[in-house]
Amino acid sequence: MTRDPRYDILFKPLKIGPVTTKNRFFQVPHCTGMGFIRPRMLAEMRGMKAEGGWGVVCTEYNSIHPSSEDLKHVSSSLWDDSDIRASRLMTDKVHAHGALAGAELWYGGSRSANMMTREVALDLDSLPNAVGHPFQTRAMDKSDIRDLRRWHRKAALRAKEAEFDIVYVYATHGYLLANFLDPVRNTRGDEYGGSMENRTRLIRELIEETKDAVGDRCAVAVRFAADEQAGEDGKPITGERRDMFEMMAHMPDLWDINIANYDVEMGVSRFTKEGALEPYMDFVKSVTDKPVVTVGRFTSPDTMVSQIKRGVTDLIGAARPSIADPFLPAKIEAGDVNAIRECIGCNICYSGDSIGVPIRCTQNPTMGEEWRKGWHPEKMNPKGGDGRVLVVGGGPAGLEAARALGKRGYDVILAEASRQVGGRVLREASLPGMSEYIRVKNYREQQLSEMPNVEIFLESFLSAQDVHAVGADHVVIATGANWRAERFNGNEYTPVVTNSSGVDVFTPDDIMDGKLPNGPTMIYDEDGYYLGGVIAEKIRHLGHDVTYATPADAVSKWTENTSESWRVRSHLMTLGIKIVLSKSLQSFDGQTAMLACEFSGQTSEVNVENIVMVTQRRTNDTLYQALLEGADRDPGKLPFTLARIGDCDAPAIIAAAIYSGHRYARELDVPVDVDEPLRHDRTDVGETKDGEYLQNA
Amino acid sequence: MTRDPRYDILFKPLKIGPVTTKNRFFQVPHCTGMGFIRPRMLAEMRGMKAEGGWGVVCTEYNSIHPSSEDLKHVSSSLWDDSDIRASRLMTDKVHAHGALAGAELWYGGSRSANMMTREVALDLDSLPNAVGHPFQTRAMDKSDIRDLRRWHRKAALRAKEAEFDIVYVYATHGYLLANFLDPVRNTRGDEYGGSMENRTRLIRELIEETKDAVGDRCAVAVRFAADEQAGEDGKPITGERRDMFEMMAHMPDLWDINIANYDVEMGVSRFTKEGALEPYMDFVKSVTDKPVVTVGRFTSPDTMVSQIKRGVTDLIGAARPSIADPFLPAKIEAGDVNAIRECIGCNICYSGDSIGVPIRCTQNPTMGEEWRKGWHPEKMNPKGGDGRVLVVGGGPAGLEAARALGKRGYDVILAEASRQVGGRVLREASLPGMSEYIRVKNYREQQLSEMPNVEIFLESFLSAQDVHAVGADHVVIATGANWRAERFNGNEYTPVVTNSSGVDVFTPDDIMDGKLPNGPTMIYDEDGYYLGGVIAEKIRHLGHDVTYATPADAVSKWTENTSESWRVRSHLMTLGIKIVLSKSLQSFDGQTAMLACEFSGQTSEVNVENIVMVTQRRTNDTLYQALLEGADRDPGKLPFTLARIGDCDAPAIIAAAIYSGHRYARELDVPVDVDEPLRHDRTDVGETKDGEYLQNA
Repeated sequence: MTRDPRYDILFKPLKIGPVTTKNRFFQVPHCTGMGFIRPRMLAEMRGMKAEGGWGVVCTEYNSIHPSSEDLKHVSSSLWDDSDIRASRLMTDKVHAHGALAGAELWYGGSRSANMMTREVALDLDSLPNAVGHPFQTRAMDKSDIRDLRRWHRKAALRAKEAEFDIVYVYATHGYLLANFLDPVRNTRGDEYGGSMENRTRLIRELIEETKDAVGDRCAVAVRFAADEQAGEDGKPITGERRDMFEMMAHMPDLWDINIANYDVEMGVSRFTKEGALEPYMDFVKSVTDKPVVTVGRFTSPDTMVSQIKRGVTDLIGAARPSIADPFLPAKIEAGDVNAIRECIGCNICYSGDSIGVPIRCTQNPTMGEEWRKGWHPEKMNPKGGDGRVLVVGGGPAGLEAARALGKRGYDVILAEASRQVGGRVLREASLPGMSEYIRVKNYREQQLSEMPNVEIFLESFLSAQDVHAVGADHVVIATGANWRAERFNGNEYTPVVTNSSGVDVFTPDDIMDGKLPNGPTMIYDEDGYYLGGVIAEKIRHLGHDVTYATPADAVSKWTENTSESWRVRSHLMTLGIKIVLSKSLQSFDGQTAMLACEFSGQTSEVNVENIVMVTQRRTNDTLYQALLEGADRDPGKLPFTLARIGDCDAPAIIAAAIYSGHRYARELDVPVDVDEPLRHDRTDVGETKDGEYLQNA
Repeated sequence: MTRDPRYDILFKPLKIGPVTTKNRFFQVPHCTGMGFIRPRMLAEMRGMKAEGGWGVVCTEYNSIHPSSEDLKHVSSSLWDDSDIRASRLMTDKVHAHGALAGAELWYGGSRSANMMTREVALDLDSLPNAVGHPFQTRAMDKSDIRDLRRWHRKAALRAKEAEFDIVYVYATHGYLLANFLDPVRNTRGDEYGGSMENRTRLIRELIEETKDAVGDRCAVAVRFAADEQAGEDGKPITGERRDMFEMMAHMPDLWDINIANYDVEMGVSRFTKEGALEPYMDFVKSVTDKPVVTVGRFTSPDTMVSQIKRGVTDLIGAARPSIADPFLPAKIEAGDVNAIRECIGCNICYSGDSIGVPIRCTQNPTMGEEWRKGWHPEKMNPKGGDGRVLVVGGGPAGLEAARALGKRGYDVILAEASRQVGGRVLREASLPGMSEYIRVKNYREQQLSEMPNVEIFLESFLSAQDVHAVGADHVVIATGANWRAERFNGNEYTPVVTNSSGVDVFTPDDIMDGKLPNGPTMIYDEDGYYLGGVIAEKIRHLGHDVTYATPADAVSKWTENTSESWRVRSHLMTLGIKIVLSKSLQSFDGQTAMLACEFSGQTSEVNVENIVMVTQRRTNDTLYQALLEGADRDPGKLPFTLARIGDCDAPAIIAAAIYSGHRYARELDVPVDVDEPLRHDRTDVGETKDGEYLQNA
C-alpha cells in the first residue's frame, strides 16, 4: 500500500527555528511515570515513537532544579550530568529514526511540594501547595528570580548537551510561569507583577535567555494556554490572552497551545471528543507566523488534514494517540490507516503518573514494556512451533491473544459463545459516554479479518468435551468474569438480601443485558472505577430517581488516577443523582437500603425499590476448571497446554485483559522464568563506578 | 558518664536461634520510602541505627517476587542478584557496628496491586484489592502455592547470601499469610482452609522451609498478631489466637508480636501512648520459650526495663523511637538518658511510605539525609570560623539552629520575644492530644542547657536596630508565621467577612492565645493537616456546638499520609462534631456561613456564631525585611550574613522547620552549591556496565 495523496500535507517538512521536522506528527510532552526513576524504560519507549514515524518526540515535564520535584508523580530532570547521560539514551534513540527530540523545562512552583528533595518551592507569593501538601512556597525575591533564571539557563544548556533539538519554556498548567502570567494570582508589586508587560516579563526573559543559550542549534518552544480561565466546554474565556499572545507572538520558534481547562484538554472520551481544542485556537494562527502545535486526541488522518488546511494548527500534537499507536504516522504513510490502533480516551495512561508507576495503555499492551520485556508494538516474535491454538472467548483478552498469536504465524481458532466478539467492551460501549471503548474490539476485529490463519467461530459455546474435540495443541481460556450480586465486607463476600426474602438486586451484567430497574434505584459502588457512575447515569436517563452510594469517600474514587473524578462527580450531580459517600450497604428488603457509616458504624436508611450492585466479579472459569478436573487437576495429563487469561484469570481493568492476552501470545512456546519474569529498570549498586560500593559488587 | 545499672538488663545478650544479639534493642522492620528505589540512602540510614547501638536492625517489607509490589509505596525486594548486592550495602554497614541484620520477607496478596510490575497478585481467593485498585487477585491453586513457597525459599537464600542474620516469615498486617490464618477470610475448601491446622499450614510450611534453607546460619522469625480482630483499644479480641500461637510456639527462633488494630500499633500520640500493646501480650511469653519482641513506641529506659522484667517481652522492638533517635541505645549505655531525642508520635515518618519519598522525622532532621547530605544524627561538622551567630526566634527552627550551631562550636545568641522558647510546638502541645509535641522543645532546651557557648535571652523582641547592636557575624531570622484570617480561593487570598461588617473570625493563633469562641462554631479547614481537627475537638470540649467544614473530600485529609485519618474522623464524629465535606466557605455574616459545593457550586448555609479559619499562614518576616530594607535590599551591604529559616521562610510542617534550622547550621561557613544542593540516589545510566548504554557514558 502507499500513502493516500490526501494525507501528503501531513508529511510536509516544517522549519522550526534552526531545526526542521520531517513531518507534522508531534508527540507533545506527556508524563510517563518513568522520568528520572526509570530512564532506560523511558528512552526505549520514546525511541519507539520515533521509529513509528513521529517527527518530533518530546520528554515529559523536565525539572530544572531539585526545588521543583513532584513525587509520587515522576518527572524527568535536568539537574546534573547524570541527567545528561540519561537524556542521551532518549535523544540517541529518537535521532536514530530521523526525528527531533524536545525537552520541556519545568518549574513547579506551588504545584510541587518537593517531598523527596525537601527543597523549599518558590512561587510568586507565599502560596499554599496546590495539591494539598501542608507546605507553602517562598515568595520569590529578586535573588530567587535570578536563581530561577540561572537554573533555567543551565537546564537548557544541559538539554543542548544531551542533543535535544527543541527546548520548551513551559508556561501553562498552573505551574510557576502560569502563575506569573495570571492577572488574579500575580499580586506582585514589583516589575514582575501588575501590568501585562510585567506579568509576562519572566517568561520573556526566559525565552530570550534560552534562545541566547541554545538558540544556535535548538528551537525554543513555549507552551501557552489560549484562554485565561476555564469556562463552559468549547466556550473560551479569553480575557487578555490574545493581547498577551500578540505581545510575545514573534519571540519563540514554536508555540505549543493548550487551554485552561485540563479536564477538557486531557478529557476522557466519556466527556470529550476528538478536536476539542479547536474553538480555543480561533486567533492563534492569525496572530503569529511561527509554527503552532496543539492537541485534540487526533486519530483520524482526515481530521488532522482538516486542522492544518483550515489553519487551526501547523503540527498535529498528540500524547494519547501516540501512546495507543506509536506507529500511527507510519501507518498513514504506508496507506494502512485501517490498522491504526485508536486511543479510546480512557486515560489509563495517566494513572501511571498518578500512582508513580510506568505508563500503560488499554489499546497498546506494549506501552511501557519496550525495554523491560522487549516488546515492539507492531512486531511479534515468530512462532515457536507449528501448533494450533484454540482461544476460548472473544473478549478483550481473547481477541488480543488471537491477534497477537495470528501475527506470530500460529493457526488460531477463536471460539466466542455469543453472536459478536468484544466481550465486556461490546457491552460497556453501549453505556452513556462509553462509545469509544468499542475501538478495543474494532481494531482487533479488523486486524483479525486480514489474517487467513485465524478463524473466528461465533455462537460457539464450548464444553470441555468440545475443547478436546478441536484437537488443538494449545488451549487458552478467556471466558471473562461476571459481576457478583454480593458485596465484600472487608473479610468476605456477603449478600445484602436474605435468600428467603424474594427480593432481588441488579448487577452491571443485568443492566448491560437490558434488564433494567423501574422506580427509585440505588447504585451501590464498591468497584470504585468508572462503571458505577456510568450505570447511575444510564438509570437516571430512564427518568428514575437515582442514588449513588459508596463506602469510598469519593464518587468513582479510582478515577482520581485517570484525571476525571471531578468531572464524573459534577456530571452526576448535574443530572440530579443523589450522592451518598462513606457508607456501606448492610441490607436491602426491596423498599429500604440500610447503610452503615464507615467511620461511626451508625446506620441510616434510604428508600429505594432497586439496587444495582457494582461490587466485585466472579471469574467465569467453569470451562478451565472442568478441563483441569478431567485431567485429575494435572495439566500435564492434557493433550494440549492449558492457560487462562484476562478476567477469567483475575478480574481487572480492560488494559490488564489486553496485556494478559498479549503476554500469553508472546510467551507461548517461549521459555519464561516465572521466578524472574521481567527486567527491572532501577539502581544496581554493584554496577556503579562509585568506589564506595564496588566492594559489594 | 556510665550506664545506670538499672538498665543493665537492656544490654544483656540474647541468643536467637543460631545468632546472638548483643543487647535488647531491636529495630523491627519499618518502611522508609527508600527500598529498591534508593538503596544507598537506605543502607546508610540502617547502618546509622547500628552505629547508634541497636542490636538488631531489620529491613522494611522485602518482596519475594515481582507479583508482590506496592508502588507508590516503596518496598525492598529480594527478586534477583541485584537485590543481593543492594542488601549487602546494608548488611555490611550494620555488621560493621556489631549488630545483626534482619530481612522481612513479604508477599502482599490482595493488598498489592502490582501497578509497576503488572504481575497478577495471588491470594487465597479471588479477592478485591484491599486498597481500592480495580484489580482482583487470582485464587491460588496448588501450583500457585508451590510457586509461592519456592519464591519464599529463594528469597530466604538470597537474604542469606546477602549476609542477613535473621529472616522473617511475615504473617500479619493483612498481607497474604495473614489472610490464610484468618478464620473468616480463609474460605478455602482444601487443606489450606477450614480447620486451624489447615489455615496455619502454609505458614508452618514456610517456617520449616525457611529453616531448612537458611537455618544453619540465620535465625527465623515470625511476625504474628496477638489478637484476632480489632476491638476497643487495650481490649484484645483474642479469638483462637492463643491456640494458634500455641500450635506454632516452638517453631521459629523468634516471635515478633503485633496486633490486629494498626491504628493502635502505629497510633499517633494524639490517640495512643507508650506501651499500648502490653494488654495484648498477656499470654505470649507464657506460651513460648522462644525470644519475643514487640513494640510500643518505647522511649523511656525505665519502661523498657519494666517490660522485660515483667515478662512482657524479651527484646525492645522499635521503629519510630529508632527513627527519632538512632543513638537511643548508645545514650542509655553512656548514661546520657537526658539526651534521648524522644519520638513525638506524629507519624510524619510514615508519610514517606505514603507518598513514595524518603522517610523524614520531626525530631531527627538527619533521618534520610545520612547518605545524600552526609548528615550524622549526633555529630556536626566543626565550625568554619570564629563568628558569633544571632538566632532570632526560639521556635522549632530557631531552637534547632541554635542547638546544631552550638554543637558545631559556634558562640550563639538565641533571642526569643516571648517568655518561653518553643514557638508553635509550645502552643500546639497545649491542644487536646498534642502533649507529646512538647518533646521537640524539651530535647533542644535540654541540649542547649548544657552548652556554655549558647546564650538564650527570653522576652527579647529585637528590632532591626537591636539586631545591629548585637554585633553578630551571622544573623538568622526564625520568627515563624501567623495564621491568616482569610482563605485561599484557588487564585488569591480573600476575606470571608466584609471589612465593614464588624464581624470577626478566629484564627488558630487566637485559640492558642486563649481567645475562644462562645456558641455554635464552625472550624473551616483549608490546611488539611491535623490542626483543624484538633481545634474542633478543643472547642467541642468547651461544650459548644461544632461544625467541621472543609473543601477537601476528607476530614484532616493530609493525615491519610500519617495513617491517622480514619481515627481522626471517627474521633470527631464520636465527639458529636458535625462534618461538612467538599464545601468552600464563601462568606460569613456573624450568623450564617455560606458554603459552596466544590463540584456543583451550589451554595448552602450553616448557622453558626463563630468561625475559626484554619487556612494558610503569613510569614512573620518583618524583621528580615526591615534588615534588608536597611541595606537597600542588598544583603552584601549588611555587616553580617543574613538568612531566614523555618516558617518565616516558608510555612510548613514542624519537621520542615527543624530541618531548615539544622540545614542552616550545617551549611553556615560551608560552601554550598545552590544549583546542585544534594546527591541523588538514582539510576545513573552512564555508569552501568550494560554495553547497550556505555556509548552514552
